[in-house]
Amino acid sequence: MRPSGRQLDEMRPVSIETEFTKHAEGSCLIKVGETHVLCTASIEDRVPPFIKGSGLGWVTAEYGMLPRATNTRMRREATAGKQGGRTVEIQRLIGRSLRAGVDRVALGERQITVDCDVLQADGGTRCAAITGGWVALRLAVNKLMKAGDVLSDPLVDPVAAISCGIYAGQPVLDLDYPEDSEAGVDGNFIMTGSRQLIEVQMSAEGATYSRDQMNRLLDLAEQGVAQLVEAQKAAAA
Amino acid sequence: MRPSGRQLDEMRPVSIETEFTKHAEGSCLIKVGETHVLCTASIEDRVPPFIKGSGLGWVTAEYGMLPRATNTRMRREATAGKQGGRTVEIQRLIGRSLRAGVDRVALGERQITVDCDVLQADGGTRCAAITGGWVALRLAVNKLMKAGDVLSDPLVDPVAAISCGIYAGQPVLDLDYPEDSEAGVDGNFIMTGSRQLIEVQMSAEGATYSRDQMNRLLDLAEQGVAQLVEAQKAAAA
Amino acid sequence: MRPSGRQLDEMRPVSIETEFTKHAEGSCLIKVGETHVLCTASIEDRVPPFIKGSGLGWVTAEYGMLPRATNTRMRREATAGKQGGRTVEIQRLIGRSLRAGVDRVALGERQITVDCDVLQADGGTRCAAITGGWVALRLAVNKLMKAGDVLSDPLVDPVAAISCGIYAGQPVLDLDYPEDSEAGVDGNFIMTGSRQLIEVQMSAEGATYSRDQMNRLLDLAEQGVAQLVEAQKAAAA
Amino acid sequence: MRPSGRQLDEMRPVSIETEFTKHAEGSCLIKVGETHVLCTASIEDRVPPFIKGSGLGWVTAEYGMLPRATNTRMRREATAGKQGGRTVEIQRLIGRSLRAGVDRVALGERQITVDCDVLQADGGTRCAAITGGWVALRLAVNKLMKAGDVLSDPLVDPVAAISCGIYAGQPVLDLDYPEDSEAGVDGNFIMTGSRQLIEVQMSAEGATYSRDQMNRLLDLAEQGVAQLVEAQKAAAA
Amino acid sequence: MRPSGRQLDEMRPVSIETEFTKHAEGSCLIKVGETHVLCTASIEDRVPPFIKGSGLGWVTAEYGMLPRATNTRMRREATAGKQGGRTVEIQRLIGRSLRAGVDRVALGERQITVDCDVLQADGGTRCAAITGGWVALRLAVNKLMKAGDVLSDPLVDPVAAISCGIYAGQPVLDLDYPEDSEAGVDGNFIMTGSRQLIEVQMSAEGATYSRDQMNRLLDLAEQGVAQLVEAQKAAAA
Amino acid sequence: MRPSGRQLDEMRPVSIETEFTKHAEGSCLIKVGETHVLCTASIEDRVPPFIKGSGLGWVTAEYGMLPRATNTRMRREATAGKQGGRTVEIQRLIGRSLRAGVDRVALGERQITVDCDVLQADGGTRCAAITGGWVALRLAVNKLMKAGDVLSDPLVDPVAAISCGIYAGQPVLDLDYPEDSEAGVDGNFIMTGSRQLIEVQMSAEGATYSRDQMNRLLDLAEQGVAQLVEAQKAAAA
Repeated sequence: MRPSGRQLDEMRPVSIETEFTKHAEGSCLIKVGETHVLCTASIEDRVPPFIKGSGLGWVTAEYGMLPRATNTRMRREATAGKQGGRTVEIQRLIGRSLRAGVDRVALGERQITVDCDVLQADGGTRCAAITGGWVALRLAVNKLMKAGDVLSDPLVDPVAAISCGIYAGQPVLDLDYPEDSEAGVDGNFIMTGSRQLIEVQMSAEGATYSRDQMNRLLDLAEQGVAQLVEAQKAAAA
Repeated sequence: MRPSGRQLDEMRPVSIETEFTKHAEGSCLIKVGETHVLCTASIEDRVPPFIKGSGLGWVTAEYGMLPRATNTRMRREATAGKQGGRTVEIQRLIGRSLRAGVDRVALGERQITVDCDVLQADGGTRCAAITGGWVALRLAVNKLMKAGDVLSDPLVDPVAAISCGIYAGQPVLDLDYPEDSEAGVDGNFIMTGSRQLIEVQMSAEGATYSRDQMNRLLDLAEQGVAQLVEAQKAAAA
Repeated sequence: MRPSGRQLDEMRPVSIETEFTKHAEGSCLIKVGETHVLCTASIEDRVPPFIKGSGLGWVTAEYGMLPRATNTRMRREATAGKQGGRTVEIQRLIGRSLRAGVDRVALGERQITVDCDVLQADGGTRCAAITGGWVALRLAVNKLMKAGDVLSDPLVDPVAAISCGIYAGQPVLDLDYPEDSEAGVDGNFIMTGSRQLIEVQMSAEGATYSRDQMNRLLDLAEQGVAQLVEAQKAAAA
Repeated sequence: MRPSGRQLDEMRPVSIETEFTKHAEGSCLIKVGETHVLCTASIEDRVPPFIKGSGLGWVTAEYGMLPRATNTRMRREATAGKQGGRTVEIQRLIGRSLRAGVDRVALGERQITVDCDVLQADGGTRCAAITGGWVALRLAVNKLMKAGDVLSDPLVDPVAAISCGIYAGQPVLDLDYPEDSEAGVDGNFIMTGSRQLIEVQMSAEGATYSRDQMNRLLDLAEQGVAQLVEAQKAAAA
Repeated sequence: MRPSGRQLDEMRPVSIETEFTKHAEGSCLIKVGETHVLCTASIEDRVPPFIKGSGLGWVTAEYGMLPRATNTRMRREATAGKQGGRTVEIQRLIGRSLRAGVDRVALGERQITVDCDVLQADGGTRCAAITGGWVALRLAVNKLMKAGDVLSDPLVDPVAAISCGIYAGQPVLDLDYPEDSEAGVDGNFIMTGSRQLIEVQMSAEGATYSRDQMNRLLDLAEQGVAQLVEAQKAAAA
Repeated sequence: MRPSGRQLDEMRPVSIETEFTKHAEGSCLIKVGETHVLCTASIEDRVPPFIKGSGLGWVTAEYGMLPRATNTRMRREATAGKQGGRTVEIQRLIGRSLRAGVDRVALGERQITVDCDVLQADGGTRCAAITGGWVALRLAVNKLMKAGDVLSDPLVDPVAAISCGIYAGQPVLDLDYPEDSEAGVDGNFIMTGSRQLIEVQMSAEGATYSRDQMNRLLDLAEQGVAQLVEAQKAAAA
């Protein structure tokens, strides 16, 4: 029934190639099916003004899509002169999600910027960005710990994300682009390794949904996140 | 226990003054406690390029905050040269939420723009904007129907929104600003008059939450939306 | 002869509702007929770089119009990415006019920003903004004096503004929108409570005028300002 | 008493060199003392959307200042990413002033853009721009008439401008920069060749003025404009 | 003597992985040593206004660098609100260079946009972009030819680019970043497969060079381009 | 054969009028045929952040074109909201070229900004800007030396620039606009007074060229630069 032939609760294959680029303190190329996102984590000593002198750290994120990551070429945001609304929304979500898994006292007064750039898109880019972004963050923090710059681990629990939606009347796990563009209801579920919720964004475009349907998607999401956390652990071991 | 002395499941007083401005096809000033939002609905014959010729209508929204709607003066976005990320996120949410209650075929090929401008802020401005925006939309559509420009009612069900969160360890309904700035977990719940869900956005900043907690907030939200829909009906009767 | 049926030298009814919003140090909603402007005055300790350390204060103004303050919806300036030429011109005028009534030594090294946002427009918005802006400023300065932050009153004389023009060949006081859009010559006259001039801006679009005509408009303006100053005093008493 | 040693009613020497650049349909370099403005008039067949099909013509203006036209280098507006408020205000004034002397029916459905670029500034640049801009316009219109594209002269009367102010307590004609930066009251007076008024902008910064003082400045301005119109006629003969 | 231990006339290893992303009509990841550039070619039916109806095709290019492609994180251009001067310069060079190898009549009235995004930088990114960009272009054109949309091959000759410079007093081929940042003179040489010149950009920063030195760098460049053209042919065979 | 009737190796007449504006520390109006560029050099005590405290000086340049410097009016860059790619490219080239002739130690920690504004364009504006820019720089540095602010001359050798190209199959010196717009190959050659090369930019649009052709253009360029350096010396003597 699904365009890809997958089972309703079947995720796309996930792979995470670490150290994909050499300059960043942490980096990986995450592939969730045909969605490929390059994630890098950059450590900087400066922090945003609002936490200067607080002793607390900060994790922030930026998101971008290469112009031809998509089926038809999109205008480059640098040429358009600003990031689009969708981009801004996504990068705020990634930053908020990753911060939920960070002990900012343990991190100390420094900032880590996680850049997530989509090389190829096939649905679920923001979820892949969060999942891969956490791996890049993990690798960068490992360097801080190895160097003794950080004493106790500031990453308290992995953070991973998956989308689920109602496609052709059925709840399905991990929407790809053909499903995403048809689904009347879809949600992004961000959770910790211990399945605590960090963020739920579930929206309908020209439709509505019941609490019952919401719960079924949450069940699927828990299942998907479990798999993603396994992949994260394997990659960043 | 709440700074305002309200019960955990007690909303702030809601008032909706319709026809607050004279030019718009529909307008109201909604007050949810000390949060005051001016909502106007403007009917235009032109539609966005992507639906030209489709026969379908469109509802979109824009959101703004006067510089001194808040406790300390914020920079005017027109001076800053762009809308901030938070603004963009909110206005996309308002548009998406209102569209979920619209039969776009019945509306016909026209656009209604709902402008929500916060005159005074005390938490929950996006929810007030959705709730009041629907009233402005209702009034504008009434004019279309009265003029015979639209034959069957394109507004299938009211749309209202409320925030809930976990404050001082307790689930509370309708966060005001002092609560909002302290709550580790808060959510915005957008529903129809028949309590179907349109959008759930529930996020934690530096914290996580369980499914159980999520369900308790949903219970509160249903209760709040019921009250809001009453107020909407009274105002737009 | 006037579309509104007013006498040539008859102003529209003026009302000023103070403390319209709660956060600003001073605020009012001024209504000059169907023109409604929300004015707030915000006190800040920082001053512009060019007076830092001078001991002098500064008063500045910003002006905006809600998108549907007008008969047809205008594009939001924050979306357009910049303030239009008309907006910039008006807010510079408001700031300059208000400063003319301020003893900057007595004010001390602080800045007061007067925001004037048009909720509903029917001609004469810049004049209403100046007149209402002065009331907001007065209220804010009252707080400074009450708190003992300012010892002698920095507001030496009220500042008020009115437009006059030549409509259908006749000099008329207080142009409303239907008159303003037809008038070949119109002027904005900003004066103090003691009828000293602060600024005269009198322009013709596709026409010219004589010194005699100019003098007749000045006579009308003096009359109008007298009434406005009464209203200001009553409101800010 | 004046820094330049001029009499109170003495203008700076005025020279107008026509055809200063070769591409524009009309051009001149106007020098009012040490204020030098290059003015060009460009004829285009396209008109702004709001008059398309009306048969009416349009005259508009743009204004700029080279970065080192002034005593200390100013930031280039193209680098800053926008025209400043002062620039916008001035170019709107120039356009409005020139249009007041144009018979838009006679001009026919075409646009003439007058660019005024200050090569060297010493006070009074906007007035020099209007006076020189009219000469460039005159020369461009001459070409239209010579070519038979326009049958009756659309320039009904010359347009010229001069500043006057109260300097050291005395009304003075044609403020140069040292006077302009000290004057508490100054005005720009735009008139036709027959001394009808087009625009009066008279403002006080941190001061006020009486109607009597205003009248004295108007007297001086009439005198100055008479001289300027002579220079215009000599140049564009 | 070179930091990398390479001979003076020794290039870095070159690899070109085609079809690196699936959506673009042509794509490759080119690696010149540690410089990695993702190149995609997108075919569009619309052409720029200035060639509409001419029957001629157009090839253009855009260039970007991921924020952490470099040793320290650079600000994202989409966030900064515009492309920097260096970016603009480079993408104009890439487009101009590729067009020199295109028969625009044979291409027909369509546009191909070549996007070059640097995933990892180690000097010579613009040259790698041109060399890899040509491969992406070749692959896209192959599709047009296979589909019969283009009858004779519009790519008349391969286009490749290499940098050379004077490092530590010696002419060296293919500067890497450590060399590039030290070299007083460096040049970019763009040539065709038959060693005709397309563009030479040779500049000194705080230094000068003789014609003799220029000729020696040209000799090296010819050698390097020969190798690159081999790699291009192997990849796009 | 050349549209202007010039010999293949004949330059246009060159004139340099110094002190064209009074505020800049150095200024000139350079005319190369019908190309007229106003160059000013402004000395500032502040330097860019990256050399603060280094004791080294900096020379930078900005370039602009008046809207009607060209045959048809171009949009003003300040109105467009940014400098175009061509402008950015040119001003970077001017700055780099002038710096090549500067001893930055001798200059001391100060910045000189050279503004080059094209009043009238007829091809070769960037070369005229460099040649005239050096004269303005020379004059400004003379003032520094006269004032004893700089002890040894920081200008080690004049810097001048000329364009050459292949027009109608022939190598020609100093392209004017009609030639420039037809030439398939053209180059800009920046050299010192002692004929050392600073920058060569030679590009083909839709064509290629041989090393032999390149050498012939270099020969012509050396000849042209010799003449320009004479003119510079005469002007700034």
